[in-house]
Amino acid sequence: MSSLANVLQQVDSDADAAITRLFDLLKIQSISTDPHYAKDCIKGADWLVAELQSLGIEASRRDTPGHPMVVGHSLKADNRPHVLFYGHYDVQPVDPLELWDRQPFDPAIEETDNGKVIRARGAADDKGQLMTFIEACRAWIQTEGSLPVNVTFLFEGEEESGSPSLVPFLETHKDELTADLALVCDTGMWDANTPSICTMLRGLLGEEITITAADKDLHSGMFGGPAANPIRILTNILAGLHDDQGRVTVVDFYKGVDPLPAQVKQQWDSLNFNESDFLGAVDLSVNAGEQGYTALEHLWSRPTCEINGIDGGYTGEGFKTVLPAKASAKVSFRLVGNQDPLAIRENFRDYVRKQLPADCSVTFEDHAASPATTMSISDRAFENTRLALTEEWQNNAVYAGCGGSIPVVGYFDELLGMQSLLVGFGLDDDQIHSPNEKYNLTSFHKGIRSWARILQWLSRN
Amino acid sequence: MSSLANVLQQVDSDADAAITRLFDLLKIQSISTDPHYAKDCIKGADWLVAELQSLGIEASRRDTPGHPMVVGHSLKADNRPHVLFYGHYDVQPVDPLELWDRQPFDPAIEETDNGKVIRARGAADDKGQLMTFIEACRAWIQTEGSLPVNVTFLFEGEEESGSPSLVPFLETHKDELTADLALVCDTGMWDANTPSICTMLRGLLGEEITITAADKDLHSGMFGGPAANPIRILTNILAGLHDDQGRVTVVDFYKGVDPLPAQVKQQWDSLNFNESDFLGAVDLSVNAGEQGYTALEHLWSRPTCEINGIDGGYTGEGFKTVLPAKASAKVSFRLVGNQDPLAIRENFRDYVRKQLPADCSVTFEDHAASPATTMSISDRAFENTRLALTEEWQNNAVYAGCGGSIPVVGYFDELLGMQSLLVGFGLDDDQIHSPNEKYNLTSFHKGIRSWARILQWLSRN
Repeated sequence: MSSLANVLQQVDSDADAAITRLFDLLKIQSISTDPHYAKDCIKGADWLVAELQSLGIEASRRDTPGHPMVVGHSLKADNRPHVLFYGHYDVQPVDPLELWDRQPFDPAIEETDNGKVIRARGAADDKGQLMTFIEACRAWIQTEGSLPVNVTFLFEGEEESGSPSLVPFLETHKDELTADLALVCDTGMWDANTPSICTMLRGLLGEEITITAADKDLHSGMFGGPAANPIRILTNILAGLHDDQGRVTVVDFYKGVDPLPAQVKQQWDSLNFNESDFLGAVDLSVNAGEQGYTALEHLWSRPTCEINGIDGGYTGEGFKTVLPAKASAKVSFRLVGNQDPLAIRENFRDYVRKQLPADCSVTFEDHAASPATTMSISDRAFENTRLALTEEWQNNAVYAGCGGSIPVVGYFDELLGMQSLLVGFGLDDDQIHSPNEKYNLTSFHKGIRSWARILQWLSRN
Repeated sequence: MSSLANVLQQVDSDADAAITRLFDLLKIQSISTDPHYAKDCIKGADWLVAELQSLGIEASRRDTPGHPMVVGHSLKADNRPHVLFYGHYDVQPVDPLELWDRQPFDPAIEETDNGKVIRARGAADDKGQLMTFIEACRAWIQTEGSLPVNVTFLFEGEEESGSPSLVPFLETHKDELTADLALVCDTGMWDANTPSICTMLRGLLGEEITITAADKDLHSGMFGGPAANPIRILTNILAGLHDDQGRVTVVDFYKGVDPLPAQVKQQWDSLNFNESDFLGAVDLSVNAGEQGYTALEHLWSRPTCEINGIDGGYTGEGFKTVLPAKASAKVSFRLVGNQDPLAIRENFRDYVRKQLPADCSVTFEDHAASPATTMSISDRAFENTRLALTEEWQNNAVYAGCGGSIPVVGYFDELLGMQSLLVGFGLDDDQIHSPNEKYNLTSFHKGIRSWARILQWLSRN
């Protein structure tokens, strides 16, 4: 039997144990955005360090001002390429908790109409995905004694909260972390049978705005009329962010957004994306995006502005006739092409300030700010990976865009001069960031086998 | 010494004990809008029953489908007028709790630049105010053995949550509760030295709207663009409720709103209301109301539309790139003249439904709906009360409007054919419905003395 055949057999025979290990990781409540869970994030990092060490990989926890990084090295494949594998062990908050059918940190295998799934917060995003790579490495090491390429591991604990420590960490550890190529497992398949490599990522700009008027909450009977109402001001400001064509009104917002090249549009059209099915899956029927584009263009090549949260006044049960002192909203922009996040941040803030009536003030809190990324697929690693995926899934792997944002890809490019190859096994119905997140058991198992193959294909580079 | 002189002396000598009794009532957490405090509301009702009984007044708790009523009778003054005194023992919620300088249900006397104040939720609205009347009755009974007029007492526990049980209760107990005149102590002074009788009240319509789009929360990267965002839809709808002159856009909203009679406007102008001081007290400087009216006109004679609460998406610490499944707002309208609350409710709902894009649905929850009220001051009781107040405060009492809503006044009129005489001792800076609510010690003490005098003046009717 070839080395690869042995490795794949080992993956299969170790499948149940792999699930048990993933469950251990899924039980850790590593919600990075909420300081209440800081200790759980440390627990997540320590768990990964121990996991890598158990494979004979030199690994350590690296503390930061935020949640820790985990770094590991397996650099024994002389004259072979060197890849950096990146994943994140932190997860999104779980609210609204009442919409979960089980406790989010109590993972289980569930039977569904579409086969078995692993149900838990982080099952797909990103714990299940990062474990596909670790398990592939385990099978190689257990079978062949070592990995076919040199691998540096980098696991982050702040991906879901804007990665504040990432840039300083990459800058400080540039030499240690730079490899020929980064592998990132945080994306999805084209569909349940078609693997894909993501070659475009949208950027992300996150802003929180708080409008303040009076110096205290007021009674709407005693002050309603003459007193400014921050909720009304906020809704006016937010309502003005789009025109009647659904275009974002922030000055120069579309600077750097180029028309889609005809060739790319042709490839996307050939994917036969079913807009009705896509929207129907979440009980929608009409494309609510900017006029003149298909849903796939909206998701992969058009920028957006979304309100992700809004809060003001009395929101409990019953009614309270209050004019609140303040109101706030969380607003994010998905960016494409060469849009400049920092320029857009300034223009957005200018827009808000200009809308502000007398007596009102605004404060801004910045969250993420990362540009979009487009990969150069002429690198041989892309085509080799596509072939490895095609072998495993017995179906042509495709190049696709991605509507989400993985800021680390931009940082790898800018700071370490390193391109990223994005392979993942998530599906559109995984409900990441939502209640009842899941990861198909097939995604997990064939994901491990896919990486086992990719590692070998990359060794030919 | 005259009877009244004896009564007033008794009020003065019993002042400390009166505060102790008020504190007992203020310690009861009778927040009516939150079901969590239902037992505290019962406690509040029982406390009042015991209080009246201790004065030899026949009193009982009357349970309703909501929080209980308290009814008492002292009907021993043959051939004298019969008044119904109304107050409410429930209070507003206390959030945001972190803005309170002390626990809201731990009352205390505090020294301030403007004299001593009683600090607690409900100190002014309405526990402190209703106790001014009970204490005046106590002094009459302790000194003279009985009250100079016939009094029926009615205390409600749902005033701050839309009074759902009030109308059925008044209808069922019409004979028991109907008197010559209602006395309501839930309004304010013109200023700290000038007592006032409120002769106009705005009505109130409360609506809660919830917009739903997708059947679950979505990831803004995976769905941002094509998927409808309920927060964005809600902000658009709310932003359209006012035109650029600050007028409410709901169809027929101003039907029944008449221009202010020249005579009334003249009287109001003579009050020399200081708009800058009024707004400056809450750190505002510019009248933000409908163009073309003074602040006093806004507060007393113009209708408004206010957003009292808004909620959607992720509002915790940090950031979450979610497109929520739903978003909601609490909206209220202050009404004047002959505006019809039910017609406005329908027109408001029509407006919302018409703004709703494809794939979205809306649900409405109704809260208060009461019309505005204007009193007929030709009733001798009004002028007698004005003279009693003028005597106590040694300053001419005035007739004034009131921007708030006291729905019970409309119900007394419609259901019991009884006019209301509104006298209260609150001040604009009492911070009712806000953190750090207070009631001036002078308001409490001279309020008691005022009622002692009013009871005697009313006995001359």
